[in-house]
Amino acid sequence: MFREKIKILDCTIRDGGLINNHDFDLHFVRALYKSLSDAGIDYMEIGYKNSRRLFNPKEYGKWKFCEEDDIKRTIEGIESDKMKLSVMVDVDRVDIDDVKPKKESPVDMIRVASYVKDIDKAIFLCNHFADKGYETTINIMAISRALDNELNEALHQLEEECKAGVVYVVDSFGSLYQETTEFLIKKARHILKTKEVGIHAHNNQQLAFANTIEAIIHDANYLDATVYGLGRAAGNCPLELLLGFLKNPKFDIRPVLDIISKEFIPLRDKMEWGYIIPYAITGILDEHPRAAIALRESEKKENYREFYESLITDVEK
Amino acid sequence: MFREKIKILDCTIRDGGLINNHDFDLHFVRALYKSLSDAGIDYMEIGYKNSRRLFNPKEYGKWKFCEEDDIKRTIEGIESDKMKLSVMVDVDRVDIDDVKPKKESPVDMIRVASYVKDIDKAIFLCNHFADKGYETTINIMAISRALDNELNEALHQLEEECKAGVVYVVDSFGSLYQETTEFLIKKARHILKTKEVGIHAHNNQQLAFANTIEAIIHDANYLDATVYGLGRAAGNCPLELLLGFLKNPKFDIRPVLDIISKEFIPLRDKMEWGYIIPYAITGILDEHPRAAIALRESEKKENYREFYESLITDVEK
Repeated sequence: MFREKIKILDCTIRDGGLINNHDFDLHFVRALYKSLSDAGIDYMEIGYKNSRRLFNPKEYGKWKFCEEDDIKRTIEGIESDKMKLSVMVDVDRVDIDDVKPKKESPVDMIRVASYVKDIDKAIFLCNHFADKGYETTINIMAISRALDNELNEALHQLEEECKAGVVYVVDSFGSLYQETTEFLIKKARHILKTKEVGIHAHNNQQLAFANTIEAIIHDANYLDATVYGLGRAAGNCPLELLLGFLKNPKFDIRPVLDIISKEFIPLRDKMEWGYIIPYAITGILDEHPRAAIALRESEKKENYREFYESLITDVEK
Repeated sequence: MFREKIKILDCTIRDGGLINNHDFDLHFVRALYKSLSDAGIDYMEIGYKNSRRLFNPKEYGKWKFCEEDDIKRTIEGIESDKMKLSVMVDVDRVDIDDVKPKKESPVDMIRVASYVKDIDKAIFLCNHFADKGYETTINIMAISRALDNELNEALHQLEEECKAGVVYVVDSFGSLYQETTEFLIKKARHILKTKEVGIHAHNNQQLAFANTIEAIIHDANYLDATVYGLGRAAGNCPLELLLGFLKNPKFDIRPVLDIISKEFIPLRDKMEWGYIIPYAITGILDEHPRAAIALRESEKKENYREFYESLITDVEK
């Protein structure tokens, strides 16, 4: 039996944009928009809403800023009855005055990404966007590193003070195993009595899909995925596998298979993501992938043992 | 806390040999033997013991036959105190007279691969090899397709009539999810009161590692893995991830990272395995990967949607 409450959010352009400075071309984003819509996906996250005063637009693609006019031009003429659009904001990187009221924007949902320590700022942003008419979520990043008492307090604050409809558990480092995922989702479900819980998993240890299934079992209803797992470093939960698992008849895997053949296989020659040993190592060690990303851009990119030893030496210090 | 009873069996050469007709060169197999031994792996499965009367030795590499002299030559001069050697036999493909008594062979363990329907033959073979002095296992293939009553009967037969020390749940099609893995491992543990239970997972849906963790949680102690996941089609549970997960101090991940850098990265240019959409599709549909393997050798290798539609049409017929 399928669960009607389950919503899939595709964040291919947003998370994949972390690899290419958010510089996907119009053809690609339009093709993806059409495929996801045809597949019955609930939300497409198209990028970040970053401040142009903090980031130079000449150095980034348009999906780092998500101007309303760029979005409108991208989706123009493509039929999509139901799919909603989402953008993400980071605490301290958004200018709230850049965000128009919902009725003037093609965006339906704004997701606020935050570390536990920034939860007060995240709640302020979230409530501001909710007041402008958007659906909102809070995405708790790097949750594997959160201290249990601080996480508990943050979740209670979210339940009591925040207008977000959904709170996501975000495994930024791809270090969670199923048992920890179960623990975190159960904790969130227990405290967040009036909200939905979501999962955003990274695939460093080939566990993004497994942890998403685990989250579904324990009643997370908002599921992040990306086509062919495209996303920063090891990437994310592959949308095609999630669609294969869910029995909900509203989803259709075929448009996703199609776009993988046509767009994502050629893209593999230009962008790197997926199961690559340095990302597995940072996942195993519960570390941010930045050291692994730097290694992949160096001449020592396949020197795994030395990389591992450098990280465990750092940890031991 | 680590579980001392856990044993890891590396089947890189045996399962990977299904891609290249078991034709790994001496240098590669010796390097792997040394790395696995240094990493503290319990068993290395070096190939199949197939009958030379059924398969022409000119068409296959030596690891399809695992002659004692070839094995001795391969491991000669490499220090390895503890690692044991294993070979696999298939029902109806082995000539029992080819198998010398244990005391004349470098092999320690013989694993009998069998479908549920062939369990009587498998028990006969297994008991014969046990009487020759070998450790033995039964590996129940394609368990996702076994009818529940037939599987129950086979497990009871194994408990009562078979000398194997271990019975493996084998997810040949890579179609199991965690809940089914839990169900099967619990069932096996419940019926096989005097034997250990093992898991051999395939990675079609990126769940080989997750299903292996699930099996560990439910008390499977014999774990199959392969270096960098090398194995037929989508491959297997990556050994490096398993070592990263297990807390047992007898294992050392570093020699495995080393051999991935030196031998497996170059090998990727010559052999194909891993997360490839047609294998994901056969996994989702609980089908043998043979149609996907054929597709990958054809001109339509990236034509995923058509492949998916051809399989679901077959199923619906």
